[in-house]
Amino acid sequence: MSKNTKLWGGRFRSPLAKSAEAFSASIGYDARLYPQDIMQSIAYAKTLKKAGILAEAETKKIIRGLEEIKRGLDSGRLHFRSEFEDVHMNIEAWLIEKVGEVGKKLHTGRSRNDQVATDLRMYLKWEITETIVLITRLQAAIIDQAEQNISVIMPGYTHLQRAQPVLLAHHLLAYFEMLQRDRERFNQTHERVDVMPLGSGALSGTNFPLDRAYLAKELGFYRISANSMDAVSDRDFVIDYLSAAAVLMMHLSRLADEIIIWSSYEFGFVQISDSFSTGSSLMPQKKNPDVAELVRGKSGRVFGHLVSLLTLMKGLPLTYNRDLQEDKEQLFGSIDTVKSSLSIFSEMIKTIKFNQEVMGKAVKKGYLTATDVVYYLVVQGVPFREAHEIVGKIVNYCEESNMELDYISLNQLKQFSSKFSYDVQRILSAKASVEAKDTIGGTSPKRVKEALKRARAHLLHDKA
Amino acid sequence: MSKNTKLWGGRFRSPLAKSAEAFSASIGYDARLYPQDIMQSIAYAKTLKKAGILAEAETKKIIRGLEEIKRGLDSGRLHFRSEFEDVHMNIEAWLIEKVGEVGKKLHTGRSRNDQVATDLRMYLKWEITETIVLITRLQAAIIDQAEQNISVIMPGYTHLQRAQPVLLAHHLLAYFEMLQRDRERFNQTHERVDVMPLGSGALSGTNFPLDRAYLAKELGFYRISANSMDAVSDRDFVIDYLSAAAVLMMHLSRLADEIIIWSSYEFGFVQISDSFSTGSSLMPQKKNPDVAELVRGKSGRVFGHLVSLLTLMKGLPLTYNRDLQEDKEQLFGSIDTVKSSLSIFSEMIKTIKFNQEVMGKAVKKGYLTATDVVYYLVVQGVPFREAHEIVGKIVNYCEESNMELDYISLNQLKQFSSKFSYDVQRILSAKASVEAKDTIGGTSPKRVKEALKRARAHLLHDKA
Amino acid sequence: MSKNTKLWGGRFRSPLAKSAEAFSASIGYDARLYPQDIMQSIAYAKTLKKAGILAEAETKKIIRGLEEIKRGLDSGRLHFRSEFEDVHMNIEAWLIEKVGEVGKKLHTGRSRNDQVATDLRMYLKWEITETIVLITRLQAAIIDQAEQNISVIMPGYTHLQRAQPVLLAHHLLAYFEMLQRDRERFNQTHERVDVMPLGSGALSGTNFPLDRAYLAKELGFYRISANSMDAVSDRDFVIDYLSAAAVLMMHLSRLADEIIIWSSYEFGFVQISDSFSTGSSLMPQKKNPDVAELVRGKSGRVFGHLVSLLTLMKGLPLTYNRDLQEDKEQLFGSIDTVKSSLSIFSEMIKTIKFNQEVMGKAVKKGYLTATDVVYYLVVQGVPFREAHEIVGKIVNYCEESNMELDYISLNQLKQFSSKFSYDVQRILSAKASVEAKDTIGGTSPKRVKEALKRARAHLLHDKA
Amino acid sequence: MSKNTKLWGGRFRSPLAKSAEAFSASIGYDARLYPQDIMQSIAYAKTLKKAGILAEAETKKIIRGLEEIKRGLDSGRLHFRSEFEDVHMNIEAWLIEKVGEVGKKLHTGRSRNDQVATDLRMYLKWEITETIVLITRLQAAIIDQAEQNISVIMPGYTHLQRAQPVLLAHHLLAYFEMLQRDRERFNQTHERVDVMPLGSGALSGTNFPLDRAYLAKELGFYRISANSMDAVSDRDFVIDYLSAAAVLMMHLSRLADEIIIWSSYEFGFVQISDSFSTGSSLMPQKKNPDVAELVRGKSGRVFGHLVSLLTLMKGLPLTYNRDLQEDKEQLFGSIDTVKSSLSIFSEMIKTIKFNQEVMGKAVKKGYLTATDVVYYLVVQGVPFREAHEIVGKIVNYCEESNMELDYISLNQLKQFSSKFSYDVQRILSAKASVEAKDTIGGTSPKRVKEALKRARAHLLHDKA
Repeated sequence: MSKNTKLWGGRFRSPLAKSAEAFSASIGYDARLYPQDIMQSIAYAKTLKKAGILAEAETKKIIRGLEEIKRGLDSGRLHFRSEFEDVHMNIEAWLIEKVGEVGKKLHTGRSRNDQVATDLRMYLKWEITETIVLITRLQAAIIDQAEQNISVIMPGYTHLQRAQPVLLAHHLLAYFEMLQRDRERFNQTHERVDVMPLGSGALSGTNFPLDRAYLAKELGFYRISANSMDAVSDRDFVIDYLSAAAVLMMHLSRLADEIIIWSSYEFGFVQISDSFSTGSSLMPQKKNPDVAELVRGKSGRVFGHLVSLLTLMKGLPLTYNRDLQEDKEQLFGSIDTVKSSLSIFSEMIKTIKFNQEVMGKAVKKGYLTATDVVYYLVVQGVPFREAHEIVGKIVNYCEESNMELDYISLNQLKQFSSKFSYDVQRILSAKASVEAKDTIGGTSPKRVKEALKRARAHLLHDKA
Repeated sequence: MSKNTKLWGGRFRSPLAKSAEAFSASIGYDARLYPQDIMQSIAYAKTLKKAGILAEAETKKIIRGLEEIKRGLDSGRLHFRSEFEDVHMNIEAWLIEKVGEVGKKLHTGRSRNDQVATDLRMYLKWEITETIVLITRLQAAIIDQAEQNISVIMPGYTHLQRAQPVLLAHHLLAYFEMLQRDRERFNQTHERVDVMPLGSGALSGTNFPLDRAYLAKELGFYRISANSMDAVSDRDFVIDYLSAAAVLMMHLSRLADEIIIWSSYEFGFVQISDSFSTGSSLMPQKKNPDVAELVRGKSGRVFGHLVSLLTLMKGLPLTYNRDLQEDKEQLFGSIDTVKSSLSIFSEMIKTIKFNQEVMGKAVKKGYLTATDVVYYLVVQGVPFREAHEIVGKIVNYCEESNMELDYISLNQLKQFSSKFSYDVQRILSAKASVEAKDTIGGTSPKRVKEALKRARAHLLHDKA
Repeated sequence: MSKNTKLWGGRFRSPLAKSAEAFSASIGYDARLYPQDIMQSIAYAKTLKKAGILAEAETKKIIRGLEEIKRGLDSGRLHFRSEFEDVHMNIEAWLIEKVGEVGKKLHTGRSRNDQVATDLRMYLKWEITETIVLITRLQAAIIDQAEQNISVIMPGYTHLQRAQPVLLAHHLLAYFEMLQRDRERFNQTHERVDVMPLGSGALSGTNFPLDRAYLAKELGFYRISANSMDAVSDRDFVIDYLSAAAVLMMHLSRLADEIIIWSSYEFGFVQISDSFSTGSSLMPQKKNPDVAELVRGKSGRVFGHLVSLLTLMKGLPLTYNRDLQEDKEQLFGSIDTVKSSLSIFSEMIKTIKFNQEVMGKAVKKGYLTATDVVYYLVVQGVPFREAHEIVGKIVNYCEESNMELDYISLNQLKQFSSKFSYDVQRILSAKASVEAKDTIGGTSPKRVKEALKRARAHLLHDKA
Repeated sequence: MSKNTKLWGGRFRSPLAKSAEAFSASIGYDARLYPQDIMQSIAYAKTLKKAGILAEAETKKIIRGLEEIKRGLDSGRLHFRSEFEDVHMNIEAWLIEKVGEVGKKLHTGRSRNDQVATDLRMYLKWEITETIVLITRLQAAIIDQAEQNISVIMPGYTHLQRAQPVLLAHHLLAYFEMLQRDRERFNQTHERVDVMPLGSGALSGTNFPLDRAYLAKELGFYRISANSMDAVSDRDFVIDYLSAAAVLMMHLSRLADEIIIWSSYEFGFVQISDSFSTGSSLMPQKKNPDVAELVRGKSGRVFGHLVSLLTLMKGLPLTYNRDLQEDKEQLFGSIDTVKSSLSIFSEMIKTIKFNQEVMGKAVKKGYLTATDVVYYLVVQGVPFREAHEIVGKIVNYCEESNMELDYISLNQLKQFSSKFSYDVQRILSAKASVEAKDTIGGTSPKRVKEALKRARAHLLHDKA
């Protein structure tokens, strides 16, 4: 006879079919919740004692039993048994085996519905904290690279076409900003996860005077759920994590794409260390940016998990439905993906060598300071749209003559507009262009250095 | 020759193909940004003046021109011209037509890259405020129904199986809680939208000493973007809206599903007013909960938009890429869906009649107080798991004898456990069961009334 | 030094970082491809011999080595080593260990790019065949239930409102039709999978005169890829499987939802056997349709995998990119989900008891034959829209008088239309209504029996 | 009073609320189905006559009325009225206005449930045919470019790293292959769409002896739906279109990404004509591949629609539910996106100029023939893995000496392996490398010319 059937009782005349048992079991993946489940049960036992349901001795016995199970699992001596469908049933069964009858009292007033929601929230809070630490580490790696390359100028792109010169550090700090928003999102998610459902029973609350405030304090929850029916059927917090994770992975996929493009022979802007490149089983000359490619690809995985959860919840009537069991593998999959992607990126970013020389040459080709010429004319009083038209023609002319803007003579320029004078030369270099972008958020060295300082400060002072 | 080509200038030798013009035009949907675009341009003109780029008279002329265009559009006298690809080009062209040469100066230091991001953020801030107001209104409708039906007891369900008695008001307040989280999400999204990209130029900043703080104040932005490259390529704020919208629509789909199930002949718990039901073109007896079905279906639409945007952004190198133009239709589609779904639900909820009598009968069938009997035994000292087993057998016995729990005699009960005594009768009613759930978040009338009071207070005092 | 680095060679100065090795390893999930990989290598060795690259003795040695590895893995004696990143590298390493130098010749002209695509296609062909068998089995279970309940009439629903009487068998056969389309989709997917990429090399083809037709015959492929660059970068066949799987799971989610609704106390149409129901850890009276709920929830999982793969492929330049490695876990996850869901549904469907009596009663309430009354009037010459209006009023009257249509007297009917005569009584029963739907696809017993016969024939004669 | 309420009848006591009317109306987008709806109604009228429900004169009157409405709509004289919720109600109302009482007979035995499914299938069949024609056109443009550039050699890439030389024509034909599969998918979808639901009534069939075979012939349907309940609730065919469309758009996004990368200054492989490029409102030198970027971005739109429809259908009980109305806007959106993307790509591809010289130079840098050197050694008897290792070291040496493979002297080569002799020089050119790939699917000029011939033949002879 199935062990589960035994636990849920007297009403069933035939046991769960083996196939159904296998199909509905979650122990294969929810085992990772055991530290939370045991911690929860210890706090719950104390609360039952406070409510007069367990005697002091019973409570101690239960707690000792649970602690023993924890040690057994930590050390690898105990192994989960698949005939108990989930982590909760496994632990409860061991407890009863260890401490006898009194173990049967622990589940009083608790349902797996509020129990699993509580475990999952405890677990996720921890993982969010880890995620935020890893984001911060990646931000630090980015800032380090930006600082080490503070004087490097490179082409800034729109439409993957050379557009205007920018500082490499400025470009890198764009990713700092994205990650900054990611941290905020995870922090806000943490706040929404930090609500304790325990005490909601199966759906309606409990019959016993459980001190939920005490319970929350024991378990480190900041808030207590306000409605038992919502508490057991809510998985918003999982979706919140997945949404934040999807945006984060999207950001990493952009950085990955840039690293891949920059590593191409044609761009040649960066060199990834051999330690983070792989070769080809066939072509001996290849050195591939596999890590970046994998991270780019893994964005799809997390987007998929988000879609899974939204689909899962769509149209579900209240309260708990077994569909909800499907939340965990998707969440765990995304957590693992996010954490490993962040870690590997932090390491890889550190090893990247930026080819200052190549970037320096690149910035000289492609008329990147054309906009500065427009502004030169604007300052001489030419309306912007007219100046834009004039410089368009100059670029056209240069292209036909196969020369760059800084090769054109003043005389030639004057044929396009009489407003040009000798000082135009001053503004045609990438350096001049970069220095001219001197407003908040601009790429002038002064602004970028300020931004670096601010970024560094954020790393130190922001809440985890 | 194409109007666009004229605006971007001198470099192009052949005009944009008609087909490409049609393909890339966005005026069909970005027209709705015109109030923001004009408001932006007015503030921008003032800032140019402050920076010494426009003279006082020029500024006034431009502002008057823009205001005139605004009036023309508001009144329907002006019509967007499809030969100008987008709302920005349309307005700039009109401005030049109206005020002449000076109109050509307005775009100085601005790019459509920062311009459109600014318009979109201004627009979205407004729409989020509207969304939040509509959520609040739906919450109010829910609270009203909960208060009007404060004494109604109904079956609470898990797995769509009758589980335990709950107050209808408690059930309804579960949705209040969901919507409360939705409000929080939209508020946080608002904060992330409330950042001004204007002044970032095409990607690197601007050459002119624009006072971005002044500009932000004029436009009502709380923060200023810190990195120009991030500012023009960031669409996180759109995804933030869509994520919040997806979760909200998921919540509504759950409420919709319950309304549909409750409206069935078999459940018969609610009656939707004729004003919110539709009939059949074939079957004259039909009265269908179409509004709820449509809202349930529309969740898919918003999930789809979220996927679209994540896909859109995946793997895009910095900075602006034309792909980004695809953000708007998806965002607008979700905004419209969310707002109309919230509105119609507020109205429909008000008209719902809950069938107290049907619910009252329902709560008596299905052994909903079995858990209370378990707890009765627990209080008599029977360990929970044993009590659970005993009551399982009692239910089994009742089912075979085709009777409900409150029909069983004390003698019969005693055959299952000697712990039963006459007072068990006291706990077998739905009313007793509900009253017993008297902890925070539980369904006891006392707790639910408190929750209602708190909910009402939230409506009044929470930030919009 | 990393084992991988050894295999790809001489160019690398520093080994792959441990973290990068762990991050990029796929052996954790691609191990399941080993039978295909070995079978492929055996056929490949033969083809190399045919091309004069391997001697007869060398070929035999390699084949014996591969067969030995296969036996080792089958029996569990050999264990994959994580320092070799994937299944291909593991097997190649063992081969070299076993047969020495000659093992180093096997990879001649082959790249992991075409190798893994070939393995995956071989594997997927097998799994599609399995999937189709399982679909057929579920169809058989549905037909069996339909035949056993051939005389049962139940309410047909639109909008979850009772609409018209239908045969339960007719309702069940709707799912047969869906599954029939699913089979077609998987068959077509099979044809698109059945194309051999091997011989495409890394991307451009191979330098050796490999007889690809011979190779395809040995490996059981029907077609040979026509373009090497497409062959190594194409994952359409994975998406084809996932699309078909998503639609199939959507169908199962609909059946699941109906089973859940029908199992509710309120509907009471079906009883799932105890062997496929689960109880509650808290509420002893509960019997929940968990299997159906899990299958409904698992639809989200497969939708998510489809999104992952589409995202993965979006915007990837040719040819092979490491992103593609992310295809496998999603595909394997969906295969496992689809197969287990189909299996468990076949079993569960068999155990379902339909409550003929409850359905029989249900069909009498809710004016289900109102449309038949409309048609009665139409036959008497009343235009359809008028007849519809008249019967609408009759239903209204009945509802106010709290009676069903078959209780209304002829006199009362005549007050709504003079066209009614005594024979109207004949058409008011569910049985008469069902029998009247006697066109192709209709629910009349005659048509449904024909449909059952056709369905049975499809099971026998359709290509797997 | 609402017009809708009038049509569905006598039972309703209060009209549909204005807001609910607006919310549920579909006339805003289903208007495009009017040609199908009218054609359907004409065939339906004939079938009613055949069944003895309409007299000859009535039938003629109705048909004339419908034809008149068609002309009115075609010419723009008639305008849809929003007080009738959908295209069907609009046309029925006009018909009654025009032909009087007899118009009220047309809906006999038909429900909007089977009517709309039939309209949608008729419409979609047409659009699929159009889609296939547009795919073929794009394939033709690709073949043309391949033929015109038949002798151009370019670097083939894996991981965006130069890998081996390939013919540009070979690269282009990879896209031909993808589009070939797309055509197959759309053809198969067409077959699944080509099933007539009409005659299924609301859900159970019809009471009248409609000759569905005749009806199908009149409407050009190949098959007739076999189960009425499936027929009215099935939207697989919409999902089939969206799946095929998603894969197609994914293919276009890959081609788009390559065009964008190839257009970059750094690659410089292609030049898009000015007619398909756009400029910048700020930077006068810019010429952007906007069309390719938009198509890449639009892939997200179609992925989103697919997700919407899957979500929509998830967990819907049989049969028709109003949720299904949400199918149309998504489908129409994808059809429009797919068609316009294919059209614009056909045009743009034609204008692309491939820079043969740049590609020719590119192929000389990056050790692209290293694999050929490995194979040279293999032919001399060196086991593949050893040869791979040797050539890896040679590449390393070349890189340190900053030279390409064809600059290395025989003496130097001999230091790495004694197997090298003077003839190695023969295999070091890109041309030799390409010619050596002479198996099916390989990039040798002979094979590619054959492939081109086959491709051309497919265009002419394939169905649709």
